[in-house]
Amino acid sequence: MKVGIIGLGYWGPNLVRNFLGNDKIKEVIGCDTKEARLKFIKARFPEVKTTNSVEELLKYNCDILAIATPVDTHYSIAKKALENNSHIWVEKPFTATSTQANELNELAEKKKLNIFVDHTFIYTGAVKKLKEIIDSGAIGKIIYFDSVRINLGLFQHDVNVLWDLAPHDLSIMDYIIPDNKVKAVCANGIANFYNHENVAHISVYFENNCFAHFHVNWTSPVKIRRTIIGGTKKMIVFDDMENSEKIKVYDSGVELIAKEKIREALVQYRIGDMYSPKVDQIEALALGVNEFINSIHEKRKPLTCGEDGLKVVKILEAADRSIKEKGKIIEIN
Amino acid sequence: MKVGIIGLGYWGPNLVRNFLGNDKIKEVIGCDTKEARLKFIKARFPEVKTTNSVEELLKYNCDILAIATPVDTHYSIAKKALENNSHIWVEKPFTATSTQANELNELAEKKKLNIFVDHTFIYTGAVKKLKEIIDSGAIGKIIYFDSVRINLGLFQHDVNVLWDLAPHDLSIMDYIIPDNKVKAVCANGIANFYNHENVAHISVYFENNCFAHFHVNWTSPVKIRRTIIGGTKKMIVFDDMENSEKIKVYDSGVELIAKEKIREALVQYRIGDMYSPKVDQIEALALGVNEFINSIHEKRKPLTCGEDGLKVVKILEAADRSIKEKGKIIEIN
Amino acid sequence: MKVGIIGLGYWGPNLVRNFLGNDKIKEVIGCDTKEARLKFIKARFPEVKTTNSVEELLKYNCDILAIATPVDTHYSIAKKALENNSHIWVEKPFTATSTQANELNELAEKKKLNIFVDHTFIYTGAVKKLKEIIDSGAIGKIIYFDSVRINLGLFQHDVNVLWDLAPHDLSIMDYIIPDNKVKAVCANGIANFYNHENVAHISVYFENNCFAHFHVNWTSPVKIRRTIIGGTKKMIVFDDMENSEKIKVYDSGVELIAKEKIREALVQYRIGDMYSPKVDQIEALALGVNEFINSIHEKRKPLTCGEDGLKVVKILEAADRSIKEKGKIIEIN
Amino acid sequence: MKVGIIGLGYWGPNLVRNFLGNDKIKEVIGCDTKEARLKFIKARFPEVKTTNSVEELLKYNCDILAIATPVDTHYSIAKKALENNSHIWVEKPFTATSTQANELNELAEKKKLNIFVDHTFIYTGAVKKLKEIIDSGAIGKIIYFDSVRINLGLFQHDVNVLWDLAPHDLSIMDYIIPDNKVKAVCANGIANFYNHENVAHISVYFENNCFAHFHVNWTSPVKIRRTIIGGTKKMIVFDDMENSEKIKVYDSGVELIAKEKIREALVQYRIGDMYSPKVDQIEALALGVNEFINSIHEKRKPLTCGEDGLKVVKILEAADRSIKEKGKIIEIN
Repeated sequence: MKVGIIGLGYWGPNLVRNFLGNDKIKEVIGCDTKEARLKFIKARFPEVKTTNSVEELLKYNCDILAIATPVDTHYSIAKKALENNSHIWVEKPFTATSTQANELNELAEKKKLNIFVDHTFIYTGAVKKLKEIIDSGAIGKIIYFDSVRINLGLFQHDVNVLWDLAPHDLSIMDYIIPDNKVKAVCANGIANFYNHENVAHISVYFENNCFAHFHVNWTSPVKIRRTIIGGTKKMIVFDDMENSEKIKVYDSGVELIAKEKIREALVQYRIGDMYSPKVDQIEALALGVNEFINSIHEKRKPLTCGEDGLKVVKILEAADRSIKEKGKIIEIN
Repeated sequence: MKVGIIGLGYWGPNLVRNFLGNDKIKEVIGCDTKEARLKFIKARFPEVKTTNSVEELLKYNCDILAIATPVDTHYSIAKKALENNSHIWVEKPFTATSTQANELNELAEKKKLNIFVDHTFIYTGAVKKLKEIIDSGAIGKIIYFDSVRINLGLFQHDVNVLWDLAPHDLSIMDYIIPDNKVKAVCANGIANFYNHENVAHISVYFENNCFAHFHVNWTSPVKIRRTIIGGTKKMIVFDDMENSEKIKVYDSGVELIAKEKIREALVQYRIGDMYSPKVDQIEALALGVNEFINSIHEKRKPLTCGEDGLKVVKILEAADRSIKEKGKIIEIN
Repeated sequence: MKVGIIGLGYWGPNLVRNFLGNDKIKEVIGCDTKEARLKFIKARFPEVKTTNSVEELLKYNCDILAIATPVDTHYSIAKKALENNSHIWVEKPFTATSTQANELNELAEKKKLNIFVDHTFIYTGAVKKLKEIIDSGAIGKIIYFDSVRINLGLFQHDVNVLWDLAPHDLSIMDYIIPDNKVKAVCANGIANFYNHENVAHISVYFENNCFAHFHVNWTSPVKIRRTIIGGTKKMIVFDDMENSEKIKVYDSGVELIAKEKIREALVQYRIGDMYSPKVDQIEALALGVNEFINSIHEKRKPLTCGEDGLKVVKILEAADRSIKEKGKIIEIN
Repeated sequence: MKVGIIGLGYWGPNLVRNFLGNDKIKEVIGCDTKEARLKFIKARFPEVKTTNSVEELLKYNCDILAIATPVDTHYSIAKKALENNSHIWVEKPFTATSTQANELNELAEKKKLNIFVDHTFIYTGAVKKLKEIIDSGAIGKIIYFDSVRINLGLFQHDVNVLWDLAPHDLSIMDYIIPDNKVKAVCANGIANFYNHENVAHISVYFENNCFAHFHVNWTSPVKIRRTIIGGTKKMIVFDDMENSEKIKVYDSGVELIAKEKIREALVQYRIGDMYSPKVDQIEALALGVNEFINSIHEKRKPLTCGEDGLKVVKILEAADRSIKEKGKIIEIN
């Protein structure tokens, strides 16, 4: 298979390396408008061809086109690629609007092409282990999902902190609690430096009395990457800053004792053992590339497909609207 | 001075011990409707007189009446005490409504009596140090205040997690950024077990492009007590779970470089040294008792007076209304 | 039963409180040469009789005499108490020399009296859990025991850091690996301020190719209380500074693959899951008091008896001799 | 300049990359007896020539020869290289014996060639900052140096844990307290799996009442890399496992109050602020390569020269002798 990669900035070189490393891939062509980035790729990966023009790249008729450009360009490049009969790999977030996402999904459907949205975290050992634990029923029903992703980070020019950092955690949430439908979204935050918010809080209401919250911040002096998942039987902490012990499963919980006497001890808590399962260390991106290629061969949708991308974009879109209206609730249908 | 203490449950005995330990106090009378609590106090503090009736206690004509009963009883007891010419000490939160708080403040004003609201954290070494650093101007203008107070905690019967845990952090916020006026409040959360919310998120909008957020949770498997304060010059992390190094001041920040070219590097970050000042270890409650007694002698309001209690109650009240309406923004006066 | 407690300084009041709290104890008499300490006890525990004379105390003919005085006075007081037919409770370390320990043990044997040595850690939930795990065979054979107990601590006048801090960890080691005989001891360290060492390292050689090491330090800027136990099957970390998760059991280890080819991969390591069992929170001292009283009633030796005290004193004695001779090996027979 | 690199196993590729990255280097030739390693290097660095023979490599008459082979081969390769008029770069530990080190140093002296011993840690931002703080006099006189370097690590075939891990910390100690002469060494430990020790403790006595201790272990379930440096004025903790805050300077210490009354409070401790300076993140190896090349151009010895290598080897040699004799003290002259 032949792969074209558009956008060789921060993440693009990782795509080049991982597609090169997959033995189903014969040829990789890199594309960026900046000559310096093409030189950089040439120096590190001499076998990669390069071009500074998307039109030129399309002429290669690649089997796969990977798009690692700014969000607001995803739609137009992806559309051209699909029309040119390439399967597409798109960096998160999938598109700038849910209308764009819907359109791309329909186009891919019609042309029987695959869309892979790079929700990389889904392929990490830690998130796969989370999924495994939750699917086993060990923690019971999920009552809340709480994620924090904050640090002193580079501001993006085209998007606020919400579009930059929240897709990671929204995709994890969607993967882990898939049958729980999102009903509505509220978001609050602040833009201290220019028109893009640097601090944001998203609240997500589910149909089934489950609640999720996402805290993202580009202006925190400390780096925190932590998700807490409350279940009716057990509770999980996923701390991605830990070198080992990324996942801890607490045999702790809350129990409702009696309902009659409203003034008596209604709710009790229980603290038990903790268990931290070993987590696979294989590079997530390599597994993502492999899943995408396999899905094409097996003529099925990949694990993180266009519909998954759409679900995340819908929440981001709603959250963005809500944050501009100071937390106004936005329904997701 | 003579002190009566009403409510000898969880916190009351600490009040007894600290009032007894103050050398301006001659006599302490304890009051609780449960005989077991009176016995408990008698065994530990043989010199304390006890009674199971508030009416009885009022007859002692105490100089100070301390109220450590459930929130919804604060107003009626406090009113009786003020009418009986006692200065009053009230546990947090001050009252169940801002109307009650206003009425008590007016009554105390009229009768020239002092109200002390037990916002204990204000008297801790850590918060005093925070105040000192911020007042020195070292961190610049505060751009955000973010607090997390979560653990696996005993549910309260009369209030939700918001009224139980948020007063601590709201009082710290109010103490630390006093001239920044609160404009509006949004709150989101969930009640998983009965009608009281066990998870809540409060967003507070200030007039001056400052933003605060409070995360409280009774159903977290891990205990976190952390506040991050972002300033234009430096940033602070206050981690109350740390044995030492509770406060860390980061010489880190974000700088706006240029405004013209919207696609160029607008915002840069800077990472510098970190400094962790020593924090006093004196028991906060002892300092609170001392401040209250001094304020009475000096005929001035104490550091945490009825007006401070009112400000916290106003935010709680608004947050409670907002959480019931899924994050609807509620203006503060 | 009647209990006399000699030495009401730092630890004595805890003994008073815990003996008072035991329902088999009818009367407690406190003894200290300093009037201030007697006053302090009277104020906190009005029901306790006090005296400033050991001779006076002996006249009470107590069932139990608890000795919480400086180490070099243990022997003479303990001897008088035994001769006066009291069972004795002695703070750690048991005695200043092994000769003294032997003599007291023989005297108690002869008079059919019990000696309890206050190796408090043996009664903590964490150490009981350690014992349980190791006794179950889960970690295999112990290959090493490594403990660190350092902080910025108050210097003792009568002993060096070795006699002050190491008894805790030596008693834990002795409890946890009892059938592994200690063969020899080496110790190194330094006395930076006066003639007593403030930093010490003790190496303990066992008969069975097991090795233990103890690091104690009064002059560390950080407080560390951590023991690592290496087993052939699993490994344990016991971190006493952790609020929860004090014990972590790692399903990690080292495996010897082949012996023939000395240059090939001989030894491989394996990293697996980690498990942190819940640990009981009951005050160790209360359990110790209970065990002592039960042992007297049941006419058996307590869990931490004079022989256990002797074993710890033997190692301390050897370590002290070794440290004075810069690490010279001292055999323990 | 032309550089030959012998030994392309674990560390060699890093040398290739860093010499290639230095603009004073024109050509790099790699050498390893294993074809697989040569292929690996060719694939990653196509411009590097390779050979499987040291004799062949010597014919290139390289300006610099870097030796990254097992310790016991350092001496013979280094000797050939010096005789062939190359400056040499030798991985730590410098040689297997101090006799070898002395001979190489003399040969280099005679031939006016430079020896660089790769004590990489000396070039890290953290250790440079440590040196800067200590040289400023801020911490006073160093009273002890305590280092721990333990993890679950790959066993070496040719050396024990002492020769494998301790060189890092010994070189740091030597760099940081250079004028304090080492007098004697004791070492204790155990070999649980085969004839090489997997746990070792080294005590180092200095002339000037300073003491150092090194704990190394290949069989620890947790990874610890921490050095504590006690000073008469301040104390430092260097924790290399920390992402940020690697160095913490504690304004804490111990003070001798009075000498007369031996039973009175002789020694007091003081706890003050803590300060964590920012540490440079530049790759140490790149700085080491640069220092070596500069030292050659400037005809001076590099910062980590053969004499520094010798000092570390002397302590390792003594420690190895001591550990075989169960802690016997070995004088260093």
